Amino acid sequence: MADIFEKMLKNSGPIGQHRERAHGYFAFPKLEGPISSRMMFRGKEKIVWSLNNYLGLANHPEIRKVDADAAKEWGLAYPMGARMMSGNSTLHEQLERELAEFEMKEDSILLNFGYQGIMSTIDAICGRHDVIVYDAESHACIIDGLRLHPGHRYVFKHNDVEDCEKQLQRATALIEKQGAGGILLITEGVFGMAGDQGKLKEICDLKKQYDFRLLVDDAHGFGTLGKTGAGAGEEQGCQEEIDLYFSTFAKSMASIGAFLAGPKAIIDFIRYNIRSQIFAKSLPMPIVVGNLKRLEMLKTMPELKEKLWSNARKLQTGLKERGFDIGKTDSPVTPVYMSGGVEEATAMVMDLRENYHIFASIVVYPVIPKGHIIYRLIPSAAHTDEDIEQTLTAFSETKAKLDAGAYKVEAIPDMAEDTVSGKRFDYMLDIPKNK
Amino acid sequence: MADIFEKMLKNSGPIGQHRERAHGYFAFPKLEGPISSRMMFRGKEKIVWSLNNYLGLANHPEIRKVDADAAKEWGLAYPMGARMMSGNSTLHEQLERELAEFEMKEDSILLNFGYQGIMSTIDAICGRHDVIVYDAESHACIIDGLRLHPGHRYVFKHNDVEDCEKQLQRATALIEKQGAGGILLITEGVFGMAGDQGKLKEICDLKKQYDFRLLVDDAHGFGTLGKTGAGAGEEQGCQEEIDLYFSTFAKSMASIGAFLAGPKAIIDFIRYNIRSQIFAKSLPMPIVVGNLKRLEMLKTMPELKEKLWSNARKLQTGLKERGFDIGKTDSPVTPVYMSGGVEEATAMVMDLRENYHIFASIVVYPVIPKGHIIYRLIPSAAHTDEDIEQTLTAFSETKAKLDAGAYKVEAIPDMAEDTVSGKRFDYMLDIPKNK
Repeated sequence: MADIFEKMLKNSGPIGQHRERAHGYFAFPKLEGPISSRMMFRGKEKIVWSLNNYLGLANHPEIRKVDADAAKEWGLAYPMGARMMSGNSTLHEQLERELAEFEMKEDSILLNFGYQGIMSTIDAICGRHDVIVYDAESHACIIDGLRLHPGHRYVFKHNDVEDCEKQLQRATALIEKQGAGGILLITEGVFGMAGDQGKLKEICDLKKQYDFRLLVDDAHGFGTLGKTGAGAGEEQGCQEEIDLYFSTFAKSMASIGAFLAGPKAIIDFIRYNIRSQIFAKSLPMPIVVGNLKRLEMLKTMPELKEKLWSNARKLQTGLKERGFDIGKTDSPVTPVYMSGGVEEATAMVMDLRENYHIFASIVVYPVIPKGHIIYRLIPSAAHTDEDIEQTLTAFSETKAKLDAGAYKVEAIPDMAEDTVSGKRFDYMLDIPKNK
Repeated sequence: MADIFEKMLKNSGPIGQHRERAHGYFAFPKLEGPISSRMMFRGKEKIVWSLNNYLGLANHPEIRKVDADAAKEWGLAYPMGARMMSGNSTLHEQLERELAEFEMKEDSILLNFGYQGIMSTIDAICGRHDVIVYDAESHACIIDGLRLHPGHRYVFKHNDVEDCEKQLQRATALIEKQGAGGILLITEGVFGMAGDQGKLKEICDLKKQYDFRLLVDDAHGFGTLGKTGAGAGEEQGCQEEIDLYFSTFAKSMASIGAFLAGPKAIIDFIRYNIRSQIFAKSLPMPIVVGNLKRLEMLKTMPELKEKLWSNARKLQTGLKERGFDIGKTDSPVTPVYMSGGVEEATAMVMDLRENYHIFASIVVYPVIPKGHIIYRLIPSAAHTDEDIEQTLTAFSETKAKLDAGAYKVEAIPDMAEDTVSGKRFDYMLDIPKNK
């Protein structure tokens, strides 16, 4: 008889398999000190490109003051219980009204946490006859929402409007055959890995031919795109045709929680039927007060978004001028595509981090195919010209080393000795001094 | 062709159908002022029995100070990003160690939010060959976790150990037939509606005959049960045999977030494979610091738990002496079972709330069968003898009115006039003055 724990001891999972040598460095690193473009990592200052603090609000003095004052006034416990039972407040409702207005929707609902919020939204909307049509590169939280759906779902190739239309045709045919159900189309405003915007305008145009409702997760577009910062829908001129607009507060707003905006009757339905919110504690008041302030600053200080974009342009142009492939981003999210093995990538990241003092996130096999390396840089309004210049230089120099094979295991012979224990990891940290 | 929104406009759901007359009063009420046994509702002071503030920590001066100081020191944005990417800190790790030690487990993992945390835990553990055996009255978050499970699941009658064994036999037979998979048994330390403890001791005894791992959601037991407050496992003397111990911070801890404690290797696996945590923002630092303080007080101030139980006993004994049916609770959760229609229950709650100034939550059809009424009272260390006495008197008097038919629609003729619009609701609020 097997033990359900056994498989977990044998196979630690795609990232977990590297736990012993990665923990605390590549995975679960600690960035210390106030949130800014420069933070401390293992006691040394690094230029940080891993935080979605787009507008630099996280450590803005006005935000710090409001956060501190709100926690002093309310404590972190109030209100208690779910909104429906005992955890409602006029400020929760005010934030909902202000978010709805900002997104040009009739109403909105606060969600205690973005991940469970969108999962549970999909669950609340879709019955077994309904069909979900969704982009292949949708975020994990959307995929988990789809997994709760008892009916059919059709995936379209990432941002491929032709394939999207094909899947809408399949969905339409199925619903006609069933004689019941409707279609929910789910995509994102900005795809967080590659930084490309979802083709919202083109998808909205399909509404002329097909009956469907559109749910957009605009986590990375909220606050960064559109004239007023209302997101990818505003940017592409189709905000009105987005039926349900979702964003987390975890990025531009530098907070936690999320919201969903849409028609009043539908938001009312969701408010009374969304399981993860009905049965879970309300957002603490200081988080609500802090988000009211963040939204106010986002609306009234366009200079923050301008600074973000000025930095994003400098970084992206600089990388392109130096010959880097940054793909098809049209948002601040800046991927840098390279080729190389996992071991090379490991050595390169450590060189960048230890010698050039650049803290950047990286994605390798098995998350993406073997032989590929993707850096993912997130510029923010808090970065300086010096941060950008230093980073561009570091990328140029380490890329030259990568191309010259300097990070290959053969080039660093001791690396091969012990690939699992902490020993190799400790050795790796010595590379800087030895070279 | 149907519109996916259409069904939501036609059917507002079990609670949503009452939205127009319930909103702001029966659903989404606002309890204002500092969290205590007496709070303001619609401008008047009420004795509140709806908050899971068991130990009275929510508004304890030491907690209020720590919450305020932590928000001042860290702001509410830090750290940013998921723990795995950029949102880790030594204090997150310290809280994990202290929780593990308190629960007598090797390790623990913080969860950003309880609902998604346990859902995603179940998802991370169970593969398609695994079988889940679970109690029929498990909380919504466990049910949503089960819904993500691609394999089999067998439900046992609530707290029925014989039926639990039968389902374990079915699960064992299936796994033997498959030649793969293991069993995860899920139950609760305290069932939040009826207040009865899960039969953990008896279920653990089944381990002698059956191979399974036990996951216990002890949301209401954590801090309230056991010699040290470690929960239902400690209370029943079987903490060691609980493989995975889960609790939210939303009740005794008067905070948000949650944790899962268990063997180091399994917690390590979960840390690297739990989707809703890997792909979502870390708990804000002031919440972590606040929970460290709450845990310290929970451990070092046994007088809080003693006061809770002294109040729970007074309330429960008082109700029983007055002839009320409080079922089989063996926790502070105090249900009061009555008979009556939805309209009667509505009038009774309003009488209690408006004339006796008692704010208590109630459950009626369609959540439970027609003709039944359940009040659910949550005593806490913050309640006083006067609160309890006043409440017992109010229950006696309103119960006598209920039995005499005073809350029947015929007895309040105008009630029947307009049962949907706000008009009836406004009239209801006038009852106090008219009687």
